[in-house]
Amino acid sequence: MNKEKLDRLFSTLSFEEKVGQMIQLTGDFFNIDERIMETGPMKKLGLHDNFEPFNVGSVLNVTDSKNVVELQTEYLKRATHRIPLLFMADVIYGYKSIFPIPLAQTCSWNFDLIEKSAQVIAKECYDAGIHVTFSPMVDVARDARWGRVMESPGEDVLLAKKYAEHMVRGIQGNREMIGENHIAACVKHFAAYGAPTAGREYNSVDLSMTSLRNTYLPSYKAAMDAGVKLVMTAFNTLNGIPCTGNEWLNKELLRDEYDFEGVLISDYAAIEELKYHGYTANNQESAEKAIQSTVDIDMKTAIYANELKTLTEENPLLLQLVDESAYRVLTLKNDLGLFEDPYRGMKREAEAETSSFPREHIEAMEELARESIVLLKNADQLPLKKKKIALIGPYSKEKSVLGFWAITGDEEDAYSLYDGLTEFSDEENLGWDIEVASGAPLIQEKDFYQFGKYADRFVEETQSQEQLLAEALEIANASDIVLLALGESAYQSGEGGSRVNPSLPEHQIALLKELKKTGKPIILIVFSGRPLLLDKVVDEVEAIIYAWFPGTMSGKVLAEILSGKVNPSARLSMTFPRAVGQIPIYYSELSTGRPHERIEPYHRFASRYLDESNSPLFPFGFGLSYSQVEYTEMKAKEEAGKHYVTIQVRNTGVYPTKEVVQLYVQDKAASVVRPVKELRAFEKISLKPGETSEVAFELTDDLFSFIDNEGNEIVEAGEYILFIGQHALDDRFQLTVQR
Amino acid sequence: MNKEKLDRLFSTLSFEEKVGQMIQLTGDFFNIDERIMETGPMKKLGLHDNFEPFNVGSVLNVTDSKNVVELQTEYLKRATHRIPLLFMADVIYGYKSIFPIPLAQTCSWNFDLIEKSAQVIAKECYDAGIHVTFSPMVDVARDARWGRVMESPGEDVLLAKKYAEHMVRGIQGNREMIGENHIAACVKHFAAYGAPTAGREYNSVDLSMTSLRNTYLPSYKAAMDAGVKLVMTAFNTLNGIPCTGNEWLNKELLRDEYDFEGVLISDYAAIEELKYHGYTANNQESAEKAIQSTVDIDMKTAIYANELKTLTEENPLLLQLVDESAYRVLTLKNDLGLFEDPYRGMKREAEAETSSFPREHIEAMEELARESIVLLKNADQLPLKKKKIALIGPYSKEKSVLGFWAITGDEEDAYSLYDGLTEFSDEENLGWDIEVASGAPLIQEKDFYQFGKYADRFVEETQSQEQLLAEALEIANASDIVLLALGESAYQSGEGGSRVNPSLPEHQIALLKELKKTGKPIILIVFSGRPLLLDKVVDEVEAIIYAWFPGTMSGKVLAEILSGKVNPSARLSMTFPRAVGQIPIYYSELSTGRPHERIEPYHRFASRYLDESNSPLFPFGFGLSYSQVEYTEMKAKEEAGKHYVTIQVRNTGVYPTKEVVQLYVQDKAASVVRPVKELRAFEKISLKPGETSEVAFELTDDLFSFIDNEGNEIVEAGEYILFIGQHALDDRFQLTVQR
Repeated sequence: MNKEKLDRLFSTLSFEEKVGQMIQLTGDFFNIDERIMETGPMKKLGLHDNFEPFNVGSVLNVTDSKNVVELQTEYLKRATHRIPLLFMADVIYGYKSIFPIPLAQTCSWNFDLIEKSAQVIAKECYDAGIHVTFSPMVDVARDARWGRVMESPGEDVLLAKKYAEHMVRGIQGNREMIGENHIAACVKHFAAYGAPTAGREYNSVDLSMTSLRNTYLPSYKAAMDAGVKLVMTAFNTLNGIPCTGNEWLNKELLRDEYDFEGVLISDYAAIEELKYHGYTANNQESAEKAIQSTVDIDMKTAIYANELKTLTEENPLLLQLVDESAYRVLTLKNDLGLFEDPYRGMKREAEAETSSFPREHIEAMEELARESIVLLKNADQLPLKKKKIALIGPYSKEKSVLGFWAITGDEEDAYSLYDGLTEFSDEENLGWDIEVASGAPLIQEKDFYQFGKYADRFVEETQSQEQLLAEALEIANASDIVLLALGESAYQSGEGGSRVNPSLPEHQIALLKELKKTGKPIILIVFSGRPLLLDKVVDEVEAIIYAWFPGTMSGKVLAEILSGKVNPSARLSMTFPRAVGQIPIYYSELSTGRPHERIEPYHRFASRYLDESNSPLFPFGFGLSYSQVEYTEMKAKEEAGKHYVTIQVRNTGVYPTKEVVQLYVQDKAASVVRPVKELRAFEKISLKPGETSEVAFELTDDLFSFIDNEGNEIVEAGEYILFIGQHALDDRFQLTVQR
Repeated sequence: MNKEKLDRLFSTLSFEEKVGQMIQLTGDFFNIDERIMETGPMKKLGLHDNFEPFNVGSVLNVTDSKNVVELQTEYLKRATHRIPLLFMADVIYGYKSIFPIPLAQTCSWNFDLIEKSAQVIAKECYDAGIHVTFSPMVDVARDARWGRVMESPGEDVLLAKKYAEHMVRGIQGNREMIGENHIAACVKHFAAYGAPTAGREYNSVDLSMTSLRNTYLPSYKAAMDAGVKLVMTAFNTLNGIPCTGNEWLNKELLRDEYDFEGVLISDYAAIEELKYHGYTANNQESAEKAIQSTVDIDMKTAIYANELKTLTEENPLLLQLVDESAYRVLTLKNDLGLFEDPYRGMKREAEAETSSFPREHIEAMEELARESIVLLKNADQLPLKKKKIALIGPYSKEKSVLGFWAITGDEEDAYSLYDGLTEFSDEENLGWDIEVASGAPLIQEKDFYQFGKYADRFVEETQSQEQLLAEALEIANASDIVLLALGESAYQSGEGGSRVNPSLPEHQIALLKELKKTGKPIILIVFSGRPLLLDKVVDEVEAIIYAWFPGTMSGKVLAEILSGKVNPSARLSMTFPRAVGQIPIYYSELSTGRPHERIEPYHRFASRYLDESNSPLFPFGFGLSYSQVEYTEMKAKEEAGKHYVTIQVRNTGVYPTKEVVQLYVQDKAASVVRPVKELRAFEKISLKPGETSEVAFELTDDLFSFIDNEGNEIVEAGEYILFIGQHALDDRFQLTVQR
């Protein structure tokens, strides 16, 4: 409807109806039989007796079209003004078609593929009747202990910005009105949720304005620039103020400076939690802090429902804020076309059932997975030449390869490694002779307790550790090569999955060491939601394929890579530490006054550790392919008044390959100390064997800028060193330029 | 001299002479034969050819009275205005009489003893002709990876403030003019040097204003309030700006807000290092940033010497800053009485030689060491009842127990554990029968490389690892009890001593496990400059005495404690982690919205780790004694209009004891989230067996205040929980009060 009509509708709403739009509950609240019971969800949440669920504006995680239709229909019968319900859900990296986890996705450095994945997500949600997805999460993360790195775009600002922009465009279709096959996106978690102290989930975040402005805020801002319709607050405190009640952050910065006019929604129960933070003395104060911070929707608590009435009676100035919030929610509904069609896009049941995994969705999953899996080491054993294969390890037949936050996905749809290898070998007539054994459980029984109510996801092995090992050794001995599929469980990362020791499990390392004794070459394939510590295994194996959690097509795509049909082209979007004690470790650290490179090795008074190198095990930007690529002739170039830096890139290998040519910049002297280097541009190019390509980067201002404490992007005059290379520590090609 | 006279003198100085006052060099620069040589120190430092060392205002680390007298005499013959040289030196926790390292000292919670130690330091420096000591270092430190925690007062703000105040008073004698037996103190490192990212020495520091104001700044401020004469800048960047060129920090905050009128000196070469930080493009810019930041003295670089002339010619406004800096240096010399007596306090050679270790200095060292050594565990084996003792471990006979930064001390003066035990047993007729064996080297040869040029401090063992172990097992088997003295080397902590894995060395743990097999009770004595990871050993031994580096009287005092003559009364001033991955871990963390205590154990969505508890191995404030102390009846009390909280404390054991009664406060709801609890007061009391004492804390404003971002100390109305207990996690006694 047009604005006048919307305004007219809005003017007819009662205070309670306006507040209703500002509340989000789960589906069970609308079950009439349940809610009247003393023990129902309303009671449990502490909602007042006179609360009317049929005023509520939105619903959380009702995700199948049958329930959506039923609930919307029932709701519209009862809601006084027939304002349709908004359905929002956690669909982070796939609805039914599950893509690699976001941290793996950004390893593709291919944001067109990422945008395609977002289109598939939007389409599947659209078909199911979901209107808003709580994606993308764009929290820059530099601490491998934190479980939720799996949902993050990684450590780098440029990659995070691109991820934000392309995800929003893919989900929303980049228009004011959200059209067919698209839904609204919600960027999260505002702000800096990815920097919890000591990597412990929900822990406080403490940052300078410089680091907030230059490292953590740009990715949220990029989502806003792409027109994102919603923003979600973060659970954490930021510099002492919980984000959900942070007026500076949400009002001054988000609304006033960034001009965000969309819906700001709290994360799950975050308004109520202001009290547990020690920021408010009671629920009324929590409501006050949240509304003053322009939080429009209270997710899953009774705070707005119970407190806004008294609060606005005591302070009528707040009525204006309630009006603004409710109006923003209605605007979102209108942007989605809900007033015209409350059942927008929904496939009816029968249709929905026949249409899972259309060809183009499978292709999108495969394409992104192929470019997300990182080859970290290869001592001449890959692509596989040997055919007598022992497939060993707890991930050999494991279908839990979707990652922690694929709650609408079905593991049964996923290819295990074994499924993928056998199917692919048949399809391509490879003649692989595959024997399979787990060798060890994924999680040892003694560690089940960690997982609380999720502990029952793990089943006790019926065979003893010795039997498992014996079986594995037997097939290893009879094989020509061992494919060893190890990793952490999906439940060891994701929200609430912080680990003080983010390593491969010790008992799996023990399995590896036993297999090593057979003398067979070992190809290690690692499944994980984070950069695991690989220091104990890196020298024990012939090759390492870092699979992350590759999603539905997992085993199929890994088979393509192992065979050489697909040449790996992924590059790490997060640094791999050598030791826990190096964390946080990231390539773009600030220059120190005593850089260890300047000073002789093992000089005492340099910025270094005594017992470990400063360098990571694998740097940001690193990844191998089956080809070799040679860089030559880095040069400055001027053409038509524009300045460029160019380099010649040649595929000297025998496989067609994709190369990620990376441009890093160091600001030699700045009014605020800048990182030792920062990724400022890159290009992913295809090269046939023997082919040479010139890659040119235009020297535009955004390669040299940073953000001052008032939020201005500035470029300072002076010298800059440009580095072009294959990863963040590749210093072979440098050029100094003047701005 | 009076101010008018000083002003008159100042008015006669040339520009070069003023700049001279702003330069500090080492003694070799004044050696006339050396400095004219092409390869001399001037050339090496890059000083201009026409530089005149006899204008230089101060000297670094010339520390014996003979050299001081010679240099001062020579200097005064040549210096145009006969302005005496200032002698400054690194005398951190002892000149000849070496006290426990500062991190151990604060474990005493006895600031009168700490003040006494500072008086001894001042006296010995005074006698040697030193005018300024670069002490106290009051950097709050919460990362056990950082090597320099040994020189810090630990993690707590209150202890750090008290340490600052008492050290300054002890060193300076708390007067405007620095009198007899006292010298000037220099508080360092301004600011927040103790919070380097990832615990890596000299790494950048990134903090919110809230955390800077409430955690890191108060201890420096306390030193200023105590009248400290000098402040030293820090090496690190603070929020992107190197401290040594940070105008906000040094001018706006230090000079204008804190009214600091004393001398601001750069840390070693820190002005030159502004360039390596990428903060300045060249030396002239470095000089400009430093002088604009009101840095008065350039320590050990050629920057002020070479650059100030051109700089002030280009920008005459800076002349005023040069004048102010030079005048501040002259004021300091005047405050020390140097114009009246350039040889103030110096003992002449012969006298100095006979007077080492006066009785009162020995007592001061003993008293502080007795209260700094922490008893962490005791399963009924201490005090020692058994007499047949196997003293095993690399620290059995080791005299390197002074810690890293006791550069004027002499290890030969120190009591090794063996020295102390044998002498004490003889003195007290205890009849201890002690056999001794190292069992293992302190550092394994394969690790020598870490130490660079310090590697030669370690000598290769002549015996094999097997021989050492066999010898140790033999005496263990023949003994009734094993005293096992393990630890890190002094060179593994201190400046430049960061460790990614701050654990007991693996080969020493292996020794412990072998000894464990003998079935003999093991008393573990740990020497260390930091809280080491003890998770692998804590359950293997009967008792743990954490000795830190106890200084000269080390073995003697340990013998007193082992025997029971001295009852341990130290309490940790820094949290001991269970795992590296918990770091930074500290008791006063901010409240989160999902505290794990609120939620069922192993609930996924709480602020916790999956694989480790949030709790430390030993909390801040923890320490045992040989007695038991019972707390009862925590009560609020009003008397004469003043409010108190009181508790009854009773020694129920059989030993006289000292108890540290600790008061922690939690602000239940604040406009800025406050720590879960904060130490706000404590009292260390003596209790005879059976004695009860009432401890009362007055509820003054400073128990409830915090500092807002503008630097105002405020108290907010609301509820506060008071906890009285024996350590930071002791929650048995609570009382809620209203402000």
